[in-house]
Amino acid sequence: MNPLSATGLKNVWADYEQDLLAVENCLIEFGGDTNDYIRDVTSHIIKSGGKRLRPLLMIISSRLSGYSGPHMVLLSAVVEFIHTATLLHDDVVDHAEMRRGRLSANQVWGNQTAVLVGDYLYATALWMATGVHIHEINDVLTLACRKMSEGEVLELILDNNLSAREEDYFNVVECKTAALTAGTCRMGAVLGGMDAEHQAALESFGYNIGMSFQIADDTLDYMARADRLGKTLGKDLAEGKMTLPLLHCLSTASIPQRESLVQKIGKGEVSDQQLREVVDLMKSTGSLDFSLEKAISFMRKAKQALDPFPDSLHKQNLLFLSDFVIERDI
Amino acid sequence: MNPLSATGLKNVWADYEQDLLAVENCLIEFGGDTNDYIRDVTSHIIKSGGKRLRPLLMIISSRLSGYSGPHMVLLSAVVEFIHTATLLHDDVVDHAEMRRGRLSANQVWGNQTAVLVGDYLYATALWMATGVHIHEINDVLTLACRKMSEGEVLELILDNNLSAREEDYFNVVECKTAALTAGTCRMGAVLGGMDAEHQAALESFGYNIGMSFQIADDTLDYMARADRLGKTLGKDLAEGKMTLPLLHCLSTASIPQRESLVQKIGKGEVSDQQLREVVDLMKSTGSLDFSLEKAISFMRKAKQALDPFPDSLHKQNLLFLSDFVIERDI
Repeated sequence: MNPLSATGLKNVWADYEQDLLAVENCLIEFGGDTNDYIRDVTSHIIKSGGKRLRPLLMIISSRLSGYSGPHMVLLSAVVEFIHTATLLHDDVVDHAEMRRGRLSANQVWGNQTAVLVGDYLYATALWMATGVHIHEINDVLTLACRKMSEGEVLELILDNNLSAREEDYFNVVECKTAALTAGTCRMGAVLGGMDAEHQAALESFGYNIGMSFQIADDTLDYMARADRLGKTLGKDLAEGKMTLPLLHCLSTASIPQRESLVQKIGKGEVSDQQLREVVDLMKSTGSLDFSLEKAISFMRKAKQALDPFPDSLHKQNLLFLSDFVIERDI
Repeated sequence: MNPLSATGLKNVWADYEQDLLAVENCLIEFGGDTNDYIRDVTSHIIKSGGKRLRPLLMIISSRLSGYSGPHMVLLSAVVEFIHTATLLHDDVVDHAEMRRGRLSANQVWGNQTAVLVGDYLYATALWMATGVHIHEINDVLTLACRKMSEGEVLELILDNNLSAREEDYFNVVECKTAALTAGTCRMGAVLGGMDAEHQAALESFGYNIGMSFQIADDTLDYMARADRLGKTLGKDLAEGKMTLPLLHCLSTASIPQRESLVQKIGKGEVSDQQLREVVDLMKSTGSLDFSLEKAISFMRKAKQALDPFPDSLHKQNLLFLSDFVIERDI
């Protein structure tokens, strides 16, 4: 991240410091209030950081829509819990060893605990959300959750599937990531009592920023410097994740190049030498540029979606966040 | 099961045949309508049977409360999906090989699929339930789900824990099983617009029948003939489940008997000879009788809870079901 965007980003977070602090307290309050063991596991993953992007989207969308009451903080914690539950289950499914620079929960406490505490956080989130007693919120949130879980299954089916198409990939990203960011922003608009047009606008913003974020993330897995991103480079290749740069490269490489690439997919690990070869190939086929362009295109749509809103600090911050999802690690 | 109760039980099911058929259709309709792979996994577990006890409780509670509209069938499918999701995750956690006499989903499709399709069914259930747009239903259901997931974690912590107490066991059963049966019966009363007293009565019935059912189930694991119950006898002992008969036996056996028993807990498998020794010991300490008495005592409380309701076919059927949970396999 360049110093300019780092400062700008810090400013966005700073504008909502009190709200985000309240969200942290809420995460601690509900993350295992009834049981010490659950609290330990939850604390491990909650306190290991994370960008709190979804809470931030909830807070800014709510405030942009004129709402800053208690439901804003509660639902911010809800979407973070849902995201956290997904991470716990993802790490079991992917046999992950690290998460956010620390040992993953499945490594520390075992798969069983990771599955069941994931269930607990998910159930807690839905219990908190339905307690707000707004049917529209429930409808948006539970539909997003259903799509998310469908996306997780779709992604699993796609692993190592050499006949996967780009549209399959976009479908996974839409379900797995964009459904919750779209729902989050829409819930902010619902809290603020926005009309249908402005609800749809914020939902579209959330959808497009989610798409952009995930595509950028999947591209950075082949581009980022490992020390910056805090995750192992080439992880998706090793796990056989059919992400956009890989799919584009497979469909544009020469037959011998493709053969060589296929040999490296889903083998559980990739040597530095192999990864360098793949990245060089992706550069020569333009696959990294192609993927980044896609991410940028969704980012632009996210920004455009905010047109119905007059200029304001909150709108500026959402626009700034849109840039961040692309620029954060290049 | 003796012929008398088998006939009687069949009659209970027969009284709600159309409702139960509608529930089956609902389970098929929503169990993976958007994805073939999910549908395959869901069908495997849905079509492998199961007693549909929770749907039956929802149907009879609703009808006893004067409601037979479409929410009854929908919410019956909801509680069955939630139960099914728990089974999928349970089987991953317990490394189960069989479920309802067939290969478990984790055996056929792997742990990853079992975890993620479980999540999908759970999310689908909550999406269906919140779509009914009754806040009281959401409150009851999500609280039950939260308790269930807490119970699953509590049970995991208790595995192989020789200092577990009977109250820990009752707490697990309350959360893991009775919370959902209590919530199910209460939701029936809510649909029927019952007053607070009758809602509480049906909730108490559901709670006590759930406690009775689970304690009987845990006792049958040491008593039942494997060919009747369709699950492996001595499974709980092999897995180190600290259920009531085991806890009672541990606390009443002589020191050498206890030593010998402890050696057999949680070893992953138990020989027929070892199991016979344990069952003989449990008989000599009165642990099986003690556990069955507990189950019967909850069953009696379940029946008493229905006192506020005048006599009717539906009340008679609930009373009959209460007997069934004890008698089904002895």
